[in-house]
Amino acid sequence: MTDTKLEDLSIAEAGTRLRDGSLTSVALTQDTLNRIKAIDGSLHSFVLVTEERALADAERADRELAAGQDRGPLHGVPYALKDIYNTAGIRTTCHSKLLIDNIPTEDSVSGAKLAAAGGVLMGKLATHEFAMGGPSFDLPFPPARNPWNTDHVTGGSSSGSGAAVAARLVRTAMGSDTGGSIRGPAAYCGTVGLKPTYGLVSRRGVFPLSYTLDHCGPLSCTVEDAAITTEIIAGYDPLDPASADKPAANLRRDLEAGVAGLRVGLPRNLYRDAEGLSPEVVRSLDRLAEALAQAGAIVEEVTLPSFEQFSACGRVILTSEAYAIHEKDLRERPGDFGELLFLRLVVGAAISAADYVQAQRMRRELSMVVNNEALRQHDVLLTACALGPAPAFAQFPPDRAMTWPIQSMPFNVTGNPALSMPAGLSGTGLPLSAQIVGRPFDEATVLRVGRTVEKITAGWGVADKPELLAAA
Amino acid sequence: MTDTKLEDLSIAEAGTRLRDGSLTSVALTQDTLNRIKAIDGSLHSFVLVTEERALADAERADRELAAGQDRGPLHGVPYALKDIYNTAGIRTTCHSKLLIDNIPTEDSVSGAKLAAAGGVLMGKLATHEFAMGGPSFDLPFPPARNPWNTDHVTGGSSSGSGAAVAARLVRTAMGSDTGGSIRGPAAYCGTVGLKPTYGLVSRRGVFPLSYTLDHCGPLSCTVEDAAITTEIIAGYDPLDPASADKPAANLRRDLEAGVAGLRVGLPRNLYRDAEGLSPEVVRSLDRLAEALAQAGAIVEEVTLPSFEQFSACGRVILTSEAYAIHEKDLRERPGDFGELLFLRLVVGAAISAADYVQAQRMRRELSMVVNNEALRQHDVLLTACALGPAPAFAQFPPDRAMTWPIQSMPFNVTGNPALSMPAGLSGTGLPLSAQIVGRPFDEATVLRVGRTVEKITAGWGVADKPELLAAA
Repeated sequence: MTDTKLEDLSIAEAGTRLRDGSLTSVALTQDTLNRIKAIDGSLHSFVLVTEERALADAERADRELAAGQDRGPLHGVPYALKDIYNTAGIRTTCHSKLLIDNIPTEDSVSGAKLAAAGGVLMGKLATHEFAMGGPSFDLPFPPARNPWNTDHVTGGSSSGSGAAVAARLVRTAMGSDTGGSIRGPAAYCGTVGLKPTYGLVSRRGVFPLSYTLDHCGPLSCTVEDAAITTEIIAGYDPLDPASADKPAANLRRDLEAGVAGLRVGLPRNLYRDAEGLSPEVVRSLDRLAEALAQAGAIVEEVTLPSFEQFSACGRVILTSEAYAIHEKDLRERPGDFGELLFLRLVVGAAISAADYVQAQRMRRELSMVVNNEALRQHDVLLTACALGPAPAFAQFPPDRAMTWPIQSMPFNVTGNPALSMPAGLSGTGLPLSAQIVGRPFDEATVLRVGRTVEKITAGWGVADKPELLAAA
Repeated sequence: MTDTKLEDLSIAEAGTRLRDGSLTSVALTQDTLNRIKAIDGSLHSFVLVTEERALADAERADRELAAGQDRGPLHGVPYALKDIYNTAGIRTTCHSKLLIDNIPTEDSVSGAKLAAAGGVLMGKLATHEFAMGGPSFDLPFPPARNPWNTDHVTGGSSSGSGAAVAARLVRTAMGSDTGGSIRGPAAYCGTVGLKPTYGLVSRRGVFPLSYTLDHCGPLSCTVEDAAITTEIIAGYDPLDPASADKPAANLRRDLEAGVAGLRVGLPRNLYRDAEGLSPEVVRSLDRLAEALAQAGAIVEEVTLPSFEQFSACGRVILTSEAYAIHEKDLRERPGDFGELLFLRLVVGAAISAADYVQAQRMRRELSMVVNNEALRQHDVLLTACALGPAPAFAQFPPDRAMTWPIQSMPFNVTGNPALSMPAGLSGTGLPLSAQIVGRPFDEATVLRVGRTVEKITAGWGVADKPELLAAA
């Protein structure tokens, strides 16, 4: 480690130093590689470190900057990809025996955009198997561990992304979110996690879990880091049927604008009576709502349909679509699946087309309530993300059901942008979280509120990275 | 009947006379009522004639025109609605025992738009039961009969719409098209039938058959009549999840522009080897392609995926969604369904969610071929609609499967606008047909080509209405 603690530089700060000559991308990348070597043996966040590629990317970045070619804010900055993102010539396993030898010929659209933006690819990150199983110990790679306490899970499925970002191995990493797979690990690991609006970011070249619920997005150290990453990966892709043809948005313009006058709805009915809700989460959310009101926001309670309705709707759709994708392998290579994924997938065989169609109908009705009612009256919603701190591995029996005590699914069902934000620490020293939800394609306001939350919670005496690792 | 044969006036011609004082809407409406009374006893195209409402609409239309209030081209002109369109205060049965006492409290969006445009509602038209059964003799109303030969079917499910328009009882009528229910009756009855682009016309207030395949559109006497009707009913409806937010289009502007320079693709592989294909249809289509080329179009063969792929994909989706809609009634009131509808619906119980999801995936691939390949190179496609003239009722055994020898389903699967056009008569004196398919939301070009086809086929010595009824 250098004295300057390069891992604490935000993407923007690193960018300043890369351009003023006080830092090279090669030095930053080498520092990152060293840090991965020092720490990741206890985290298992990477399933593959692409050291040669990273150094080549860094050298090219330095050469280009020296020649006056500037690719923008990510130029020369390390990032990593969840191992369901295709990487041309680089093994992409989905953390599964089934794809252990899979070497794609093309990059995912998001990966290609981050590379074209000058980013330095550090490697491929652990996931729950095919973004749905896990945490599992019967796969080709071990599960990632929570940097705040390695006896605890990271959440899933972007588990390596959460761990790597929380441990400051990279400032930003791509995750994917079908029922909460960005926001869950972000919440448990204490990072920022943005599930953008359905259709903002192309999913092409990312192994699908559930076509109509899948979203690609970043887990990042700060709101600004997440905004930079999202600006790069957003954009219309005519070959992703879900992609929306929207103009590019500047997501950083309003980050420091504060929340004065913004209307913040609190759908407390979603989580108030939830099983497993920690009182610490309730106190944290209440404190946050109060602080936002003090910062000038108009904070009001709002009622949404019950979490159970959203969850049931999303689960039927997710399980049906995931089963359709894996049906052939389930029949032909059942033994190559991990036990957890197998158990969660086979349920899909029993779902009827009519049940699926009814779930899609219900989805439209739920979306209408969220968008035509709650978010007509409010600019954003503030609600729970994880209902408590990350559980320990020991609390996960191998037949653990797919549902997690995280309230992310409602906004996969509706497609609204949703941001998981760190919101203090539990008594046991693990991250708590909050969720900010906005109108479709209004990531700018979601991130603006997120930035205010970031400032508020920075004053709560909470370290911005795991103490365990800060010393590394 | 009057000497002037009011039923032969196009909507535009009637409009001219309504405005120059040589005709009143009340006179036109009374003539229509007389004609319905004289003819419809042998056609059964209406399940309800709304005589009082029609005369009240007509009186209001005359009063408004006299006062200088002009609602546009349909002002004072009779129209009718398939009996799956909700009508406030007027029985809406879906041709089914299940809804025999159903009196909606609100109009369908299309119906409300036609009323607001000054149209005169003549009544509700026969359909196949819930737009899917039929032709059936075990329902509260008899099936509509083909005006060209009442021993023959009209096709379905907009059977009353086809019969009423072909018999010139109304110039335009609303139908709906999920697998071909506008284009089939239009083809068999020798009318113009337009299935607009998916999302152009709101389906709200129309009893659904299959959410992702349902389209509302007109059956009309001429291309111009269809264009006028479509302009009125088109438009964004935020409460129909499929509705597209598109600016209104003037569909009549280019009607007389001809086809010089337009590129017309012929996907002959769709029908060339189809079972039940009549050589008369092939000759008619070849003759039409030749005439279009003579009129200056660039006519080329193009290959699409096989009809069987489109059909299988559409059938899985249609049956799944229809079953989901009727599931509760199928369990609780099975005896109230007609036999044909019951047999066609119950199949849906056996379709798995995975099969449905796979069909939706296949649909996207098929749509991409049609839109990114065939319709990138061509402005429109010209292909078969019905593969032969309308069969006789006697040819329909009661367990007749749902598939008809009509190639309409591909464009329900893809959502492209598709127009059924009369294309001469068979040796047995029944209408033949052609289908013109365009790019999404490019109804203007489809109708423009349709108008040229209308002129070409007018020269083929084909009467523009059934001889049988011309004398009535």
